Amino acid sequence: MKVRLGLDIGGTTVHGIVVDAESHHVIGEQITHPTRHGADGVVTGAVEMISALRTALPSDHDVIAVGLGVPGIVHDGAVTHAVNLGLDHVPLDLAGRVADRADGVLVTVENDVKTAALGGLAWLQEQGSTVDDLALLNVGTGLAAAFLLDGKLRHGSRGMAGEIGHLVHDPDGPICPCGRRGCLELFASGSGLRRQWDGTAAELFAAAAAGSSDAAGIRDQLTAGIAKAISLLAYGLDVSYVLVTGGVVSATPALRQAILDDLRTDEGTSLGKLAAIADRVRWLPSDYPAGALGAALLGRDPAWRS
Amino acid sequence: MKVRLGLDIGGTTVHGIVVDAESHHVIGEQITHPTRHGADGVVTGAVEMISALRTALPSDHDVIAVGLGVPGIVHDGAVTHAVNLGLDHVPLDLAGRVADRADGVLVTVENDVKTAALGGLAWLQEQGSTVDDLALLNVGTGLAAAFLLDGKLRHGSRGMAGEIGHLVHDPDGPICPCGRRGCLELFASGSGLRRQWDGTAAELFAAAAAGSSDAAGIRDQLTAGIAKAISLLAYGLDVSYVLVTGGVVSATPALRQAILDDLRTDEGTSLGKLAAIADRVRWLPSDYPAGALGAALLGRDPAWRS
Repeated sequence: MKVRLGLDIGGTTVHGIVVDAESHHVIGEQITHPTRHGADGVVTGAVEMISALRTALPSDHDVIAVGLGVPGIVHDGAVTHAVNLGLDHVPLDLAGRVADRADGVLVTVENDVKTAALGGLAWLQEQGSTVDDLALLNVGTGLAAAFLLDGKLRHGSRGMAGEIGHLVHDPDGPICPCGRRGCLELFASGSGLRRQWDGTAAELFAAAAAGSSDAAGIRDQLTAGIAKAISLLAYGLDVSYVLVTGGVVSATPALRQAILDDLRTDEGTSLGKLAAIADRVRWLPSDYPAGALGAALLGRDPAWRS
Repeated sequence: MKVRLGLDIGGTTVHGIVVDAESHHVIGEQITHPTRHGADGVVTGAVEMISALRTALPSDHDVIAVGLGVPGIVHDGAVTHAVNLGLDHVPLDLAGRVADRADGVLVTVENDVKTAALGGLAWLQEQGSTVDDLALLNVGTGLAAAFLLDGKLRHGSRGMAGEIGHLVHDPDGPICPCGRRGCLELFASGSGLRRQWDGTAAELFAAAAAGSSDAAGIRDQLTAGIAKAISLLAYGLDVSYVLVTGGVVSATPALRQAILDDLRTDEGTSLGKLAAIADRVRWLPSDYPAGALGAALLGRDPAWRS
């Protein structure tokens, strides 16, 4: 049996997955390792994960491709700006270096939000959808999006398509670590929440409901920031679906409802009614391995046009 | 000689053009008529313009296609939301109705900002560019964008791709005619300027330079709003170029400089330096008939993939 391996290399853990190369179904156990940092660490960590996944495979399984998803900008095969992996400054030929130590198997590297979009498409198709046009919004530590437009992953001229977290949301807001003031990510992300609130999003919503005006203010900014990001993707590109992922959102039903309520207020306008943004939102299940699955599917059948 | 006709049907005037179907060069005189409003008026106006363009052609010129650009949403061939043409409510099969009265020639209809993006690509190519990936930002009475991504015009699921004028820019801003509060268009458009300032943008900049703090505030909001729209397009989609059109911008060199200065302040950040948004901006010459030319080129050689 031909299989593909997918690695989702995050700042804390590397998640490894095996996918049937024909059916695209996940097979066997998924594996998680702690992340090694720095260029050599990331390469070694990937090689070790590939080795662990291979060791767990039955002997008649043949690995035909390995995909790596990384939290950084991937352009012309080089990884840059992967701060959470300790790869900030020097472009890294991650795929090439891993391939050198992986018995010559084809290795492809891609930004992790983009691999999640590929995995998100697979999830949509499992739900019976035939549409291949979506944006994925990842509300994680940071905030970023990726686009599958008419089935094709959008990279852009510098590999930066979807980097919406540092669009300025509030010019009078606080200074962002990036150097700008009031970036969208300061409000609409896990780190944005932690900056303002010592607890979970569910606790924030509970405190706001119990009458805390401080909590209500933070809650409303979090809700409005994520709703704004969704609107921006849906109005800007008019994608069929906006798939939303990330711990803050998936762990907090009240936040999801508040986001939909915010988006539905827009439907009182003629353009808003036509756009019907709220109807396009899908919450990707938190246990769906979109990033690793999408990584495994990188470079597969050209009919997928990614 | 085979030729194509392009009509840019605006709220005030219809602009007609003839294009050599092989070279794509404009030939003969361009014609301008006042716009007729309402469904019947728009159809009749288009038919009259086609007739006028044909009458002016030498007898050996054969019209093989007509393209119509309209300020509305075009989806599945139907025009809606063309408020400035008096077509607000009933979807209009404009191409079909014009074709019925145009001797069976192929007629295609498209949103006017999208036709301007096609015309903008032709302009870029005249400048020697081989890139076919751009956003066009039209700072007209309203504010809207269109995308040519890898040479393909982006329509989106409901024909609304690029409708960024009514993204909320300032939640505490004034009420927009659309019903929302603080839309980007209220600040970054000709109508936004007129709402706040009784004069031209050049006069606004002069008054601000002469010390008027009111003028300076309006100037800064206009500049920041347009810069924000450009950033949004460039960061969101990472297009190679953002072509900016519209009377306010093309008539006001000081505004263009202020927009570039605003965008360049972003280059103090790591992501901003990498993105280099200001370098992607191109000002489409005001006398370049992008909308009508793009309309004429609708549905041409499939190699153009629009």
